[in-house]
Amino acid sequence: MSLDIIEMAARIRALGDQIVPATIEGTAQLYGPYHEREPYQGVKVSRDLAYGSDARHLLDVFEPGSAAAARPVLLFVHGGGFVAGDKHHPGSPYQDNVALWAVRHGMVGVNMTYRLAPQHPWPAGAMDVGAAVAWVRSHVGHHGGDPDRIILMGTSAGAAHAAAYAVNTRFHADGEPGLAGLVLLSGLYDMVTAPGNDLKVAYFGDDPANYAAGSTLTGLTRTPIPLLLVLTEMDPPEFQRQTLVLLEQYLQRNGRLPYFVHMMGHNHLSSTMHLNTADTFLGERLLDFIALHRQATG
Amino acid sequence: MSLDIIEMAARIRALGDQIVPATIEGTAQLYGPYHEREPYQGVKVSRDLAYGSDARHLLDVFEPGSAAAARPVLLFVHGGGFVAGDKHHPGSPYQDNVALWAVRHGMVGVNMTYRLAPQHPWPAGAMDVGAAVAWVRSHVGHHGGDPDRIILMGTSAGAAHAAAYAVNTRFHADGEPGLAGLVLLSGLYDMVTAPGNDLKVAYFGDDPANYAAGSTLTGLTRTPIPLLLVLTEMDPPEFQRQTLVLLEQYLQRNGRLPYFVHMMGHNHLSSTMHLNTADTFLGERLLDFIALHRQATG
Repeated sequence: MSLDIIEMAARIRALGDQIVPATIEGTAQLYGPYHEREPYQGVKVSRDLAYGSDARHLLDVFEPGSAAAARPVLLFVHGGGFVAGDKHHPGSPYQDNVALWAVRHGMVGVNMTYRLAPQHPWPAGAMDVGAAVAWVRSHVGHHGGDPDRIILMGTSAGAAHAAAYAVNTRFHADGEPGLAGLVLLSGLYDMVTAPGNDLKVAYFGDDPANYAAGSTLTGLTRTPIPLLLVLTEMDPPEFQRQTLVLLEQYLQRNGRLPYFVHMMGHNHLSSTMHLNTADTFLGERLLDFIALHRQATG
Repeated sequence: MSLDIIEMAARIRALGDQIVPATIEGTAQLYGPYHEREPYQGVKVSRDLAYGSDARHLLDVFEPGSAAAARPVLLFVHGGGFVAGDKHHPGSPYQDNVALWAVRHGMVGVNMTYRLAPQHPWPAGAMDVGAAVAWVRSHVGHHGGDPDRIILMGTSAGAAHAAAYAVNTRFHADGEPGLAGLVLLSGLYDMVTAPGNDLKVAYFGDDPANYAAGSTLTGLTRTPIPLLLVLTEMDPPEFQRQTLVLLEQYLQRNGRLPYFVHMMGHNHLSSTMHLNTADTFLGERLLDFIALHRQATG
């Protein structure tokens, strides 16, 4: 079954720009037929390795059956509005597809999950990302990965957690973030101006003091970590607005933009759900980002 | 000779972010070896067709040796700070490479030149684009092109001229812009806040009233023409700032961004100079843009 990118874009657009179950399910179904199903050929999957003591302190490691040299590591943080989501649902191709894409393109893929609000409010998500990064740094060498080349990628709430970890030294195990790159897809970076809603209150509470602490906008303009921002055509307007504000403040401080990918014909979900299909939109840019950074520092 | 995109990015970055002769020449030389040289295989080139009465009212049409159906048309407007530049320099692969890329990807390519400042100040450039569009609409059918599918693409000063034509009805021959798409690379859209310099004064004069009239910012947020904005990593900060302002105002008005491509590892010149080489960065996004629009309207 060949994937018609243009036809797919039409279907994605028809789903609208709100993040509601029909959009989430609709997007998942659209890309479903194009994904690999288990068992994954030539890939060794180690599931549910514990990086902490909570029942959700779990990650899956995807490595090649055999590899010559240590590979860069893509550590992926799923979305779910702070209150839902998982790294893997048995029978579903998501989020395995992200880690599979990494393995199929010269990396080791690690998919993590994390504690959820409201039981675990701010900064539980950022702390969990930190614990997972520490675990990867210690253990990924045994899975064919290079602990000095970890690319942290988060989407939606996962982008908020990944960003919060990256810009706050108090979450860094060794005083350093330990990241070779940070990829943020469709996140919210300024919780002060983000419209109040149940999800925001569930994770950040109703004390505005937490909204400032939980904002990563300023920190992201100052991070020395190579940064790639991603936004989709059909992201809700508030996500688009927040990414633009971040781009603007980054430019003001640094005299140039961070790497930025605007995904035509994609939505809040398909930006990750299309990975490891014949649609190489984000994949090619991710590979460029990783390769360009390698050159810049290596 | 194979093109190493990562190595090329390093060389592009080393040229800096100022638009000076060393950067322009350096970029031209970097990509030179990867370009086709005349005679171009399987392409019919009609040079210096006159679309008006001035010595610079000239365009080159690139069409396939044979074609089954009428093709979309890419009409390209070169840059040069309002005071310089040309569609073709004998012996140089530029800007032939843009029209060649178009022909190699299912289109007819048309490269136009236009009158220059200070002899021909605002709005000569916009008027010339209008005259060229009118010529293409009338004549491109004889060159295998579809007059109803003209994509207008301009870079730098050429983007300013293309935008000014697109958003001002007074330049439209039939009351309609006659465009199926508008692609603007590294342009300045707000001449009021653009820093004063010799080039600005040469074309827009020193009367601020012209700066408002020559600004396309507001018009671009309202245009019904499908819009693709392009910016490069190494564009001078003012170009980056102006594109961000346009994105922001477009979002405010339309609830979503126009299509936007941020070119990692590229500069103000290479965004067009890399077209028709093994680096498909902008080319792939242009093809997506054209295909996605076809779907949206067809």
